[in-house]
Amino acid sequence: MRAYRMTGWGSPPEHVEVPEPTPGPGQVLIRVAGCGLCRSDLTMRQMPRKAGERLGWRMPFTLGHEVAGRLADGTPVALTTAESCGTCWFCLRGLDNSCPHGLAGRGYGRDGGLAEFVVADRRSVLPLGDLDPRHAGPLTDAGATAYHAVRRALPRIVPGGTVAVIGAGGLGAFAVQFLRVLTAARVLAVDVDPARLAYAESIGAHAATSTLDDRELDAVLDFVGTNETIAAGIAAVRSGGAYGLIGSAGGHLDRPWFGVLPRDGEVFTFQGSTIADAQEVIALAAAGLIRNQVEEFPFDKAAEAYERLAAGTLTGRAVVLL
Amino acid sequence: MRAYRMTGWGSPPEHVEVPEPTPGPGQVLIRVAGCGLCRSDLTMRQMPRKAGERLGWRMPFTLGHEVAGRLADGTPVALTTAESCGTCWFCLRGLDNSCPHGLAGRGYGRDGGLAEFVVADRRSVLPLGDLDPRHAGPLTDAGATAYHAVRRALPRIVPGGTVAVIGAGGLGAFAVQFLRVLTAARVLAVDVDPARLAYAESIGAHAATSTLDDRELDAVLDFVGTNETIAAGIAAVRSGGAYGLIGSAGGHLDRPWFGVLPRDGEVFTFQGSTIADAQEVIALAAAGLIRNQVEEFPFDKAAEAYERLAAGTLTGRAVVLL
Amino acid sequence: MRAYRMTGWGSPPEHVEVPEPTPGPGQVLIRVAGCGLCRSDLTMRQMPRKAGERLGWRMPFTLGHEVAGRLADGTPVALTTAESCGTCWFCLRGLDNSCPHGLAGRGYGRDGGLAEFVVADRRSVLPLGDLDPRHAGPLTDAGATAYHAVRRALPRIVPGGTVAVIGAGGLGAFAVQFLRVLTAARVLAVDVDPARLAYAESIGAHAATSTLDDRELDAVLDFVGTNETIAAGIAAVRSGGAYGLIGSAGGHLDRPWFGVLPRDGEVFTFQGSTIADAQEVIALAAAGLIRNQVEEFPFDKAAEAYERLAAGTLTGRAVVLL
Amino acid sequence: MRAYRMTGWGSPPEHVEVPEPTPGPGQVLIRVAGCGLCRSDLTMRQMPRKAGERLGWRMPFTLGHEVAGRLADGTPVALTTAESCGTCWFCLRGLDNSCPHGLAGRGYGRDGGLAEFVVADRRSVLPLGDLDPRHAGPLTDAGATAYHAVRRALPRIVPGGTVAVIGAGGLGAFAVQFLRVLTAARVLAVDVDPARLAYAESIGAHAATSTLDDRELDAVLDFVGTNETIAAGIAAVRSGGAYGLIGSAGGHLDRPWFGVLPRDGEVFTFQGSTIADAQEVIALAAAGLIRNQVEEFPFDKAAEAYERLAAGTLTGRAVVLL
Repeated sequence: MRAYRMTGWGSPPEHVEVPEPTPGPGQVLIRVAGCGLCRSDLTMRQMPRKAGERLGWRMPFTLGHEVAGRLADGTPVALTTAESCGTCWFCLRGLDNSCPHGLAGRGYGRDGGLAEFVVADRRSVLPLGDLDPRHAGPLTDAGATAYHAVRRALPRIVPGGTVAVIGAGGLGAFAVQFLRVLTAARVLAVDVDPARLAYAESIGAHAATSTLDDRELDAVLDFVGTNETIAAGIAAVRSGGAYGLIGSAGGHLDRPWFGVLPRDGEVFTFQGSTIADAQEVIALAAAGLIRNQVEEFPFDKAAEAYERLAAGTLTGRAVVLL
Repeated sequence: MRAYRMTGWGSPPEHVEVPEPTPGPGQVLIRVAGCGLCRSDLTMRQMPRKAGERLGWRMPFTLGHEVAGRLADGTPVALTTAESCGTCWFCLRGLDNSCPHGLAGRGYGRDGGLAEFVVADRRSVLPLGDLDPRHAGPLTDAGATAYHAVRRALPRIVPGGTVAVIGAGGLGAFAVQFLRVLTAARVLAVDVDPARLAYAESIGAHAATSTLDDRELDAVLDFVGTNETIAAGIAAVRSGGAYGLIGSAGGHLDRPWFGVLPRDGEVFTFQGSTIADAQEVIALAAAGLIRNQVEEFPFDKAAEAYERLAAGTLTGRAVVLL
Repeated sequence: MRAYRMTGWGSPPEHVEVPEPTPGPGQVLIRVAGCGLCRSDLTMRQMPRKAGERLGWRMPFTLGHEVAGRLADGTPVALTTAESCGTCWFCLRGLDNSCPHGLAGRGYGRDGGLAEFVVADRRSVLPLGDLDPRHAGPLTDAGATAYHAVRRALPRIVPGGTVAVIGAGGLGAFAVQFLRVLTAARVLAVDVDPARLAYAESIGAHAATSTLDDRELDAVLDFVGTNETIAAGIAAVRSGGAYGLIGSAGGHLDRPWFGVLPRDGEVFTFQGSTIADAQEVIALAAAGLIRNQVEEFPFDKAAEAYERLAAGTLTGRAVVLL
Repeated sequence: MRAYRMTGWGSPPEHVEVPEPTPGPGQVLIRVAGCGLCRSDLTMRQMPRKAGERLGWRMPFTLGHEVAGRLADGTPVALTTAESCGTCWFCLRGLDNSCPHGLAGRGYGRDGGLAEFVVADRRSVLPLGDLDPRHAGPLTDAGATAYHAVRRALPRIVPGGTVAVIGAGGLGAFAVQFLRVLTAARVLAVDVDPARLAYAESIGAHAATSTLDDRELDAVLDFVGTNETIAAGIAAVRSGGAYGLIGSAGGHLDRPWFGVLPRDGEVFTFQGSTIADAQEVIALAAAGLIRNQVEEFPFDKAAEAYERLAAGTLTGRAVVLL
C-alpha cells in the first residue's frame, strides 16, 4: 500500500510503498478514509535523532495522528490520537493523556494514518455513528484537546461570567464552540488575525478582539502561550478563576506569582486529551452541536497540504482523503 | 483601656490608652484573652500612607488579627482573621477569603486584638468549646491559612503518594499536621533550618530534608515562595499533581510554562482563609488532633515579642496575653 | 398600605390595610413591583396552628415569597425566597438552603410580598439589571429551585447523554431550559398533560412523552414525586447517573434499594435553593437565555389568581402586580 | 493441579484435579499464595442455572475471587476482584466497577483462585511490594469495596463531624480504619454483635453501639442494608450528608422520600470496587496504616473454612493457603 512517511531523521516525508500492516492481539485493522494534518507533524521533520530515540520513536514511520476510517465490516470509526497502555496508574483513573506510554504512538514514532491501512488497539477505536470518517480525524486531536481545556475550566465558569479564548485558530475555534454549548458564559475570542476573529464570531463568540483588556473573567484558555498572552491572560482572570495554557509558544510570566496569579484560582497546562474527551467530542459532533471545518486534499497532494498548513493559508483543518 | 497601636504611617506601634469600643448592630463585644503575632504585623509599620489609604486603612488602629477571648457571658471564642461582608458574590458561595471587603480589617487598618476589648461581626465569632482562648488566636490565621492550602490540594493526594511542605515554620508546621490527619500520604518537610526540621518530624513529618530532590509528588505546598523553592517545587510535582504557593517571598518561575508546569495538574496561590477553614481548624484542635505550639508574652512585653518574631528566635507562635 | 394576608390559622387570606414596614439594621425597604404565586401558598391556609408555631411562624402575616421590586433609589431587585442567617455552618459554606433559620421567612410566617412594601436583609437583595421587576419574582423560587436540581445533576451529565424531566409545569419548564443551556445532553420532557408537553418542546425539549420508558439516562429530575414517577425515574438512570427528587407528592420506592437504585450513582432531594442559585438564574434571564412565562393579575384579583393556580388553568406562573 | 470448584448448578463445590491454565494474549500466569473466602461464594451454590447463564457464567468453574500470589519471576501480586474490559465507556473513565463485562469473572463463572494457578489480564495484576501474598487477597475485595464506600462519602465528611459504620464485620471493619486514616471525623461503629463492636473499637472506632440514635451525622455507611438499618441510617444523616448502602440485605425505606431523605445530601449504593480502589487499599496496607485481620486455613480445609464463614465464627477474613 502507499504511505506518506518519515524515512529518516531530519529529512522530509515522502510517498513510499509499504506492506499492509497486520493487527496483533487486541488490535484491529482500519481502512483509512481521511487523516487530518497537524502542526506538530511539521516539527517532526526537524526532530533530532537523539531526541526521537529518547522518546522511543522508531524510524521510518508513517505520519498522521488524526485518523478516521472503517473497520472490516464497514463501521466508521475514529482513532484516538495518543497512545496509552490501559493498565498504568493514570489509565486506570481515566487520565490516559498522562500515560507514560504516550511518548510514541500512531503517527509520531509509529505508523500513522497517512496510508491506506493502519492498526489500532481496540481501546483507541471510537465508533462514529453517522459522522463522515473522511472528516472526523481532527475531532480526536484538535477537537479533543480543546475539549479537555474547556472541561478543566468548566467548574469555574458560571452563568453571568465571561471566558476568553486566546488564539482562534483550529483548537481555539473548537473551544469557542464547546464553551457555547456547555456554559452560559459570554465567550470572547482574542486573536491578531481578523479572519480568525470573524470566523470565531460566526461560530458563536459573543465578541472578538485583538487584545485582551478585560478583567474579572471566569476563565482564560490560551492557545498561543507567548509571554504576552500569558501576562494578558493571567491579568484577566478573577479571584477563583482559571487560566489554562494549551499553546506551546514557550512563554512564561516574568512577575511574582504571589499576588499576581489569580487569587485562589487555578493555573493549568497539559498536552493531548483523554479517550473520554475524544468520545465526547464525537458525541457533540454527532448531535450537530459543533462545526468541524475542514479543507480536503487528495492523498497525492499531502505535501502541498502541509505547505498550506505551514504557510497559514488554510481555512479550517486540512484532511487528506485516502 | 490599653491598646498596642499603630499611631502614624511609617512609625512603630506603641502602648496607648483608648476608649472601650461599642458594638454596632450585628456586632458583639469580646474581652480579649490572647492575641497571636504575625509577620505581616511587622510590615505594617513600613506601610506607606498612600498604599494604606488605597486599601481603605484608617490610622490610628490597634494591631493584632489572631484574636481569641470571651463573650460577655464567658463563652470562649476566636475571631476570624479576615474581614468579609457576607453578602457579595464570593461570600454567598463560601469563598469569603476573596471578599473585596477583606482589604481592611481587624488588626490591619481597623482596631485589632492587642487591647482589652475588641468588637466583631457576629459571623466572625467562632465558639472554642474547651479550647483555651489565650492560645487559640493563631488557629484562625496561621492555622486556617495552612488548612486552606491543604484543602485545595486534597483531591490530588492519594494513598501511597507523597506531599512536600516547603518551609516548616508556623504555617508549614500546621500543614504537616493537617496532611497527617487528613491524608494517607507520606509527608516530607523541607527547610534550611535544622531546628524546624526536627520539629516537623516531631509533629509527624515522615522525613525532613534541606533540599527537595524528590519527583512524582502528589503535591507541593510552598510556604516560602522564592525563585528557588518555586523551581524545586514545580519540578517535583507529578502529572496531575498540585503546586500551592502560600509564601510571599515574591518569586516566579523563569522557564517556559508549557512542558514545565505539572502536566494536567494545578498551580494555585491565595491569601488568607475562609471562615469555614477556621471553624474546621478549631474542630481539629478541639479533637486533640493538632498541636498549636505557642510562646506566651505578657501584654507589656508586646514590643519584645515582635522583636523575637523579627529575629526568628521564637519557638512556635507568639501569643500576647491580655 | 394594602396587603394580601393570612389573618388566622386555617382561614383564607384577605386584603387588609397594614402599616408600612420599617427596615431594621442591615435591612432595606423594597417597593414591590410584582409577586409570583406558588402552590405552597395554597397549603398555608390549611396549616394547623401547632405545625405553624413549631416552625416559628407568626400569625398574621402577608403572603408572597416570589418578590421583586425597587429600592428607594429605583434600582430593580428581586428578593431571595428562603430566609437564611448568614452566620451558621451552612450559610458560611454557601449552603444557605439548609440554614435552620429558613423555616420561617418572607411570605411564610413573616410578612411577604403581596403588599406595597416589604423589608429584606441586605444579603437577600439581588440586583436585576435590565430585567422587569414586575415579572422577576418567580426566578428566585420556581427558577432557582429548578436550577439547584440541574446544578446538582450537572457533573453526571455528559455530551451524548440524555436527561429526563418528569413534570413539565412551572419548575420543570425551567429545568428543561437550564439543561439546554448548560449541557449538551438530549432533554426529554415527561408529563401527562399534552399542553405542558407541547410547551416543553417549544422551549427546547428534544422529545416529550407521557411515560418514561427510556433506560441508561444520565439523570432524571422528578418534579412530581409519586410512587410511580419515582419507580420510573429510578429505573431509567444509568450506572453512575443521578436521580433528583424535587416533587413533594410524597412517594417512595417499594423495592430493595440494593441492586435497584442506580449503581454507583446518586439519589438526592432538597427543598428551595441558595442565594447563589437565584443570582445565576437572574444572570441567565438577563442574558436572554431562558424564558420566564408569566400571567399578570392586578393586586385586587389576587384571590382569583390563586383560584386559577389551584385549578391548574394558568399558562405560566401567576404574578400579581402591585 | 488441584482446584476447589463448582462442578454443577445447585451443588456444593468440591476438590478436583484440573489442568494448569495457559495465559492468553495480554494475560499472565499467577501461582496462588492465598485466597480469601467471601460470603458471596456461599450464595453461588444456590445460584439457579438460568440466572447463572443469564450472567454469562460457565459451569464448572473454580471458586475464589480474593486472590494473591506470585508471578513467574516471584513478584508478589494481588488480583482485582471484578472483571472489566478496559475499553468501554465506564472503564475509560476509571469507573470499571460499572463495566458490563463484570457480570462474570475470576471465581464467579470463570476459574478463580482456589487452585494452584490462575490467569489474569495484565490490568488486573497489582504489585504488592512487601505485603505477604498469602494474606493480601481480601484487600482487593472486602478492603476495596469498603474503600470505595468511604471514597464516595469523603467530600461530605468534615473535621468536627461524625460518621457511622453500620455492620462492623469484614467490610465494616475496613471502613472504620479507612475513615480513621483519611478523615478527622469521629467514627461510630454500630453492630448487634458485642465482639465485633469490641474489635471495631480496637482498630480505631471512637465509640461502638448496638443502635444508631445519633443525628446530624456527616455520613452513614450501611454494610447491613435491612429496612431497619436503612431507616436508622437515613434518619441519622445531616442536611448535605451522605448515606451509602453497601449491605445486600434487600431493605428499603417505607416512608416518603421528599422531606425524609437527607436534605440536599446524597444517597448512593454500588457493588464492587474499581482497580484504583484496590491499588489504594494495597498502598494503605503497605504503609502499615490498616490491619488486615485474617484466619489461615490449609487448602484441604477449604470446606471447613466455608462452614466457619457461614456459621459466623471466624475472627477476621478466612484465607485459604495454597
